[in-house]
Amino acid sequence: MGHIAKGVRGRPRSEAVERSIVEGVLKMIEDGVPLADLSIERIARTAGVGKATIYRRWSGKEELFVDILRGVDGPPPELAGESMRGDLVTLLDHLRRRGVNMRSSALLHNVFAQMKSLPKLWEAYHATVIEPQRRVTLGVLRRGVENGELRADVDIVLANDLFVGPMLVRTVLRSDAPLDEGLAERIVDSVLAGLRPTG
Amino acid sequence: MGHIAKGVRGRPRSEAVERSIVEGVLKMIEDGVPLADLSIERIARTAGVGKATIYRRWSGKEELFVDILRGVDGPPPELAGESMRGDLVTLLDHLRRRGVNMRSSALLHNVFAQMKSLPKLWEAYHATVIEPQRRVTLGVLRRGVENGELRADVDIVLANDLFVGPMLVRTVLRSDAPLDEGLAERIVDSVLAGLRPTG
Repeated sequence: MGHIAKGVRGRPRSEAVERSIVEGVLKMIEDGVPLADLSIERIARTAGVGKATIYRRWSGKEELFVDILRGVDGPPPELAGESMRGDLVTLLDHLRRRGVNMRSSALLHNVFAQMKSLPKLWEAYHATVIEPQRRVTLGVLRRGVENGELRADVDIVLANDLFVGPMLVRTVLRSDAPLDEGLAERIVDSVLAGLRPTG
Repeated sequence: MGHIAKGVRGRPRSEAVERSIVEGVLKMIEDGVPLADLSIERIARTAGVGKATIYRRWSGKEELFVDILRGVDGPPPELAGESMRGDLVTLLDHLRRRGVNMRSSALLHNVFAQMKSLPKLWEAYHATVIEPQRRVTLGVLRRGVENGELRADVDIVLANDLFVGPMLVRTVLRSDAPLDEGLAERIVDSVLAGLRPTG
C-alpha cells in the first residue's frame, strides 16, 4: 500500500490510519456508492481524518483506488527464469487467478465495471498494473527468441497478444467462461505448437 | 441527419417515427446524458411520441440501445465457406473493423464504456450480438476439424478464444493498440502455424 509515515505521539499509527481509510472506501463501495461520488473529502470524512492525511499517502483518489485493487491482486508473480514457456505459464496463471478472485468478489467486479467509464482511474490502473506486466511479458518473449523457444521472425508485440488475449477474454470479457487450473498451460502450449495438423 | 418525413394527415410514418426515436436517443447520448438516465418516458418525450409507440417497437430500452449499436455495427459478415482459414479471417476482420469504428466514434465508445455497468444492457447485447457471432465462429472451427484444417484433438472452445482473444484485446481492452488491415490474417496464420521454431 501507499507510503508509510512514522507514528507521532498521540496520533494513530500510520498503518492503522491507512487501514481505516481503505476500509472506509471498501465499505462505501459495498454500500453501492458509485466511485465517481467518492471524493477525497467524503473519504476523509468517513475515515475520520483530514484531507491532508489522505494526500500525504496518495496523490489523488485514483492512486488510492489502484492501491486498493493492487492489494486484492496480490504481488506480481515471481518468474523462475528457466524457460520462456514456464514464465509465460506463470504470468498467465496470475491473470487467471486474478480472474477467479474477481468473480468471487462482487466488490472487485463492481469496481472494474465502473473503471472503464472513469478514464483517470483506468489510466492510473493501466500505468501501475497493466503496463508493467506487459513489459515483463515482452521481456520473457524476447528471451524466448534469444534461447530459441520462439521463432525469430515472430512479432513480439503480436505474440504477447496471442498468449495473453485468450486468457483476458475469459477473465475480463466472458464472466461465465471456465478458468480451470490447467488453462494457462493449455493456452501457452497451444499457441506454441499451433492448431494446424502436423505431418 | 436527415429530415423526418411526415405521412398522411400530419402523422409521421412508421420508419420516420423509428428514426426520430433513435435520433433523439443519439442526441441525448451525445449531449452526455448517462444511459442509466434515459428512461422510456424521457425518450418518448424527446421524440414527441407516446410511450406505447416505443413499446410497440422495442420491449424495453435495452433492446432499443442494442438495436442502435447493431445499426452502427453493420450486418454480420458473409462467409465464403471455402476454407476455415478464410472464414476466420473474415470474422476477425469484422471485429477489427468494429474496433476501428468504435475508436472513431466518441458516442459508440461512450456507450460501450457505460454498458459494462448496466448489466441488463450488457446481457441484451451479449445475447443479440456476441453469442450469435460466437456460435458462427464455433461452426467454422468444427468444419475446420472436418476438412482437416484444424487438428482433431483441439478443444474447439479454446480454439475460439485463441483466434478471437488477440483481436478483442486490441479492440476492446487496449484502445491504443494498432488495428492495421492485415491484422486478422496475421492472427489466424500465427495461431494455425504456432510460434515454436520448426525443424
